[in-house]
Amino acid sequence: MNEGSHHTEPKRRGRRTGGEDTKAALLAAAREVFVQRGYEGATVRSIAARAGVDAAMVNHWFGGKEALFAKAVLQVPIDPNALVERLLDGPDEEIGERIVRNFIGIWDPIGGGQFAAMVRSVTSHDQVAEVLRGFFVQTLLKRIVTHLGAPDGELRATLAASQIFGMGMVRYVVRFEPFASADVDTMVKAIAPTLQRYLTGDLG
Amino acid sequence: MNEGSHHTEPKRRGRRTGGEDTKAALLAAAREVFVQRGYEGATVRSIAARAGVDAAMVNHWFGGKEALFAKAVLQVPIDPNALVERLLDGPDEEIGERIVRNFIGIWDPIGGGQFAAMVRSVTSHDQVAEVLRGFFVQTLLKRIVTHLGAPDGELRATLAASQIFGMGMVRYVVRFEPFASADVDTMVKAIAPTLQRYLTGDLG
Repeated sequence: MNEGSHHTEPKRRGRRTGGEDTKAALLAAAREVFVQRGYEGATVRSIAARAGVDAAMVNHWFGGKEALFAKAVLQVPIDPNALVERLLDGPDEEIGERIVRNFIGIWDPIGGGQFAAMVRSVTSHDQVAEVLRGFFVQTLLKRIVTHLGAPDGELRATLAASQIFGMGMVRYVVRFEPFASADVDTMVKAIAPTLQRYLTGDLG
Repeated sequence: MNEGSHHTEPKRRGRRTGGEDTKAALLAAAREVFVQRGYEGATVRSIAARAGVDAAMVNHWFGGKEALFAKAVLQVPIDPNALVERLLDGPDEEIGERIVRNFIGIWDPIGGGQFAAMVRSVTSHDQVAEVLRGFFVQTLLKRIVTHLGAPDGELRATLAASQIFGMGMVRYVVRFEPFASADVDTMVKAIAPTLQRYLTGDLG
């Protein structure tokens, strides 16, 4: 809803001459600081200081630390906070379906190249894997399993992550057919029950 | 059982002066030919010809095309034929469990670096993804779903592949805890039912 504000011109300050410069400086600073300090240790203040801009610019241009991380490190145009809200908005017993629909809804239009680039960056740099771990656990998964409230929440969250990662690998990277071209309803029927069981069901 | 024969000295021929040279030449030739012609198009004869050795050397040193592919392209010391035999050796309704136990039994000792290297190679080169696709579909997955005989075998096989890939990503690459350190019985209880349903169960 407040996405529109991202396109207004910010106040010019210091040596920065425009919003695009500020954004670029924040993205470059964020990549460095996240990798150096990990997801939790990288504060909005420290990233803004590295970029030489005011900390308020992070919220102004990216909507917060989570979205800056997604854009700078994962290099995907996703706002993780908004995503978590969408995933939690509905009956708990349908969260598996919402995850599949949102995942495919986000990534099908972006295409395989960006998913492959994200995976490549994770597999090439241990620090990226480390910071991704912090991000996923602290931001996405912990919020979801805390909301759902089933026991062994961390195991459940990482089990769900395994099916979600694998869905991306097979659909966008190795592109095994018929999986890669299956319509979203087929994906939901097949995969939503897996995610639902991992998050709220009986793990044996 | 016939693994021992891999360590005997082959007949020397041409400019090759020893078994290690022959193996290295076959591996290099296999990488080229698999990527150029795809998994099906790359014949043992064409690979041996490229390496300048007799086609019998492929069976002698690697046990066949599948294992040469695993070693040359995936760069993992797995014999896919032997693996399929192990997976199919037992009740159909326990194949999910056998897949989880074999996957972890193979990859836990090898460690995360090699799995990450395989994923990196797949994500970096479209041709590698293409040849991996041919290999998986033609060799591993088709044999398993043909044996099990459930309808929609190709969708089932690729669904299973998604959970297997994801298991490797979370356990060995991004190493989300507690998934990454969970013992094999915990993994079996959680993930075997997913694979079993994908391969033989109700997909909705």
